[in-house]
Amino acid sequence: MEHGGDLISYRHYYHGELVDFSSNINPLGPPKGLEEVLIEAFKSLEAYPDIKYRKLKTSLSLYLKCQQDNILVGNGAVELINNFVIPVKRVVVMTPSFSEYEQRAIAHGKEVVSISYNKDFIPDIHSLSGTIKQGDLLIVGNPNNPTGLRIDKEKLIEIYKLIIERDAYLLLDEAFYEFCPQDYDSIELFKPKDYKGVGIIRAATKFFGLPGIRLGYGCASKETVREIEKIALPWSVNALADIAGQFIFKDKDYIEKAKAYIEKERNFLLAELSKLDGMEIYNTHTNYILIKLEDWDEEFVFQFFLKRGLMVRKCSSFKGLSHGYVRVAIKDRKNNLRLIKAFDELIRRGKG
Amino acid sequence: MEHGGDLISYRHYYHGELVDFSSNINPLGPPKGLEEVLIEAFKSLEAYPDIKYRKLKTSLSLYLKCQQDNILVGNGAVELINNFVIPVKRVVVMTPSFSEYEQRAIAHGKEVVSISYNKDFIPDIHSLSGTIKQGDLLIVGNPNNPTGLRIDKEKLIEIYKLIIERDAYLLLDEAFYEFCPQDYDSIELFKPKDYKGVGIIRAATKFFGLPGIRLGYGCASKETVREIEKIALPWSVNALADIAGQFIFKDKDYIEKAKAYIEKERNFLLAELSKLDGMEIYNTHTNYILIKLEDWDEEFVFQFFLKRGLMVRKCSSFKGLSHGYVRVAIKDRKNNLRLIKAFDELIRRGKG
Repeated sequence: MEHGGDLISYRHYYHGELVDFSSNINPLGPPKGLEEVLIEAFKSLEAYPDIKYRKLKTSLSLYLKCQQDNILVGNGAVELINNFVIPVKRVVVMTPSFSEYEQRAIAHGKEVVSISYNKDFIPDIHSLSGTIKQGDLLIVGNPNNPTGLRIDKEKLIEIYKLIIERDAYLLLDEAFYEFCPQDYDSIELFKPKDYKGVGIIRAATKFFGLPGIRLGYGCASKETVREIEKIALPWSVNALADIAGQFIFKDKDYIEKAKAYIEKERNFLLAELSKLDGMEIYNTHTNYILIKLEDWDEEFVFQFFLKRGLMVRKCSSFKGLSHGYVRVAIKDRKNNLRLIKAFDELIRRGKG
Repeated sequence: MEHGGDLISYRHYYHGELVDFSSNINPLGPPKGLEEVLIEAFKSLEAYPDIKYRKLKTSLSLYLKCQQDNILVGNGAVELINNFVIPVKRVVVMTPSFSEYEQRAIAHGKEVVSISYNKDFIPDIHSLSGTIKQGDLLIVGNPNNPTGLRIDKEKLIEIYKLIIERDAYLLLDEAFYEFCPQDYDSIELFKPKDYKGVGIIRAATKFFGLPGIRLGYGCASKETVREIEKIALPWSVNALADIAGQFIFKDKDYIEKAKAYIEKERNFLLAELSKLDGMEIYNTHTNYILIKLEDWDEEFVFQFFLKRGLMVRKCSSFKGLSHGYVRVAIKDRKNNLRLIKAFDELIRRGKG
C-alpha cells in the first residue's frame, strides 16, 4: 500500500534537496527544547519504557482534558486503529480515506465494506444507515485524509446516534485535529456519554512534527481501554516517544503559534491555487489540499514536480479517486511559493 | 500479564537506586558512540522512517549473514512474534516460556495448546509429536525464557523434521542469542532449507542493551517475509531504532567484549550461587538464571531483596512454574556480589 513521505525512493531523480509535499507534517518542526530533553533522555533507551506509561498518560490527560483511565497510547495512530480492528467482525470505511483503515482490516481477515463520501466529500447519512449493522466498526477520518474536511458537529452527532441505535462502534481518526479550526472537540463532545460506542485517535506525528518518533494516543471508554490494552503489544511506545510525550503537550505557545501559522498559509495557498486554471481546488480544514487535475494525470504532474525538486502525493492509491488527483501539503511560505510557481509552469506548458 | 523491568511500580519501597535483576539486559549498556550517532540523528524524528527500511536491512543482512529479502524488522521482537501469530489457526507453546507467546495468540483469538518441557527444561519430542498438527505455529524460546537453555543442535533438527513432516511452522525466539555459547547459528543452519517452515527472531533489546529503542528483527523465507510484511504496521520501527540498527551491528569489538564479559560473570555467578543451601540453581546458556526456592516463596524473596535495593523476577506468572521460583539477571561484578550477599543473608535468616 502506498504512503506519502517516501522521499528515499525518489531522491535520485533530482539534484538537490527534494521538498516533501507528499506527507503532511507541520512545517514548523517539533517544539523547541525537545532536542535537549531527548539528548538528556538517551539513558532512557537502556531501560524498558514504563509498561503502564504512567507519566505519559498524566501528560495526555492534562492536554486532552480527559481521565487517565480513558487514554490509550500506541506506536503511532496506526497501531491504535489496528487494535480497534482486531476484536470486530466487520469494518466499514468511507472512500476515499487513509488506506490503512482497509489495510488493517484485511491484515486481520475482517470483512470490509466501503461507503463513498458524497461528491463534496461529506458522509452521507442515508448510505451509512443502509449499511451499518450491529457490531460494525465504522472508521472515519476527522478531518479525513486526503480530502481535508472535518465532519460538521451536527452531522457527527447524527452519525453517533445511528451508531448507538445499531449497537456499532465509531472510531474517529483525528490525527490532524490540531491543524483544524476547532469549533468543537470530540473528546469534550462525547465526554457526557462516557465515550460509549466511540473512540477518538490522535497523534504527535503530524501537528507536533514528529513522524519518526511514533506516538499515537486516543480516548475511549474505560471498558474499551481495558479491552484494547489486552490486545496491545507491551512497550509499543518507545522510550523517546514516551519522554517526548511528557514534554510537547505543555508547550502552549508552540501549539498556538503553529495553529495560527497553518491557518495563514492555508488561506494563502487556497486563494493562490484557486486562481489557477485546469484544476479544481477542494476546500480544506487542515494542512493539506486535494486537487482535481482536469488537464493532466497524476503521474505526469508527479514527474513534472519531481524535476523541480517537489514531491506531491499521487492519489489513485486512495480507493474512490481516479488517476486525476494529487494532494499537496501546506508548508512554509517559501516552499508554498515554489509550489505555486511550479503549478504556474505546468499550466503554461499546457495539457499533459 | 506480568513482565520484568517494572522498576517504577516498586521504586518507592527502597530509599536509593533500585538495581534491576528482574529484566535481562546487557550490563555493559549499548555500544560506545551510539549516543553521538543518535544525537546527530535528532533531525530524523522530523521525517517518517524509510517505510522499506532499506539501510537497516542492509546492515542486518551483513550482521546476520543472510539476504535482505529474508529479513523482517519490527517494534521489538514481540511485534514480530505477534505478526507470525496472526495468519495461523492454532499456536503451540512450551511451558514455562515468555508469556507473550500465549498472550499474542489470545489477543488474536487463536486456539492455544501448551506442552510442558521435561523436568530438565528440554523439549520432549514425543509430546511434540503427539500434538503438532498441520498449520500449527510452534513458538520456542532458543534460549528459552525463564529457563535460560538453548536447544541442542541435534534436538533442533529433530523438531524441525517433525514440523516439516506435519506441514506446520517453527518460530524460534532467539532474543538472547548473542549471550549464548554459539555452537551453531540457526540462521546458518536453516539457510540450505531456504527457511522453509522456520522463522528466527532476534532483537537489539537484550544483548545491545537497548530495551527503550524497540528494535526486533528476524529471518524467514522470502515468501513468509512478504506475507508478514502485508500484516505489519507501516513505520513500526521508529527513526532512532532504524538509525541505531545501522550502527550497532558493526561494532565487532563491543560484541566480542560483551560476550566474553557475560560468559565470565555467568560462570562466576553460577559457581557462587551453587554453593548456597535452600535453593536449586539451574544451568543457563544466557544472561539470567532460574532459581528454585526450596525454603521460601517468591513473594517473600522478592520483598526481602527489594528491601536491599535489588529487584528479582517472580516466576509464578510463567505458566508451569509454581510460587517457588525466581529469575535473576547476570549483571556486572559489583552488583552480582550484592546479589550473592543478599542470598547469603536470606539463608542466614532461615526459612520464610
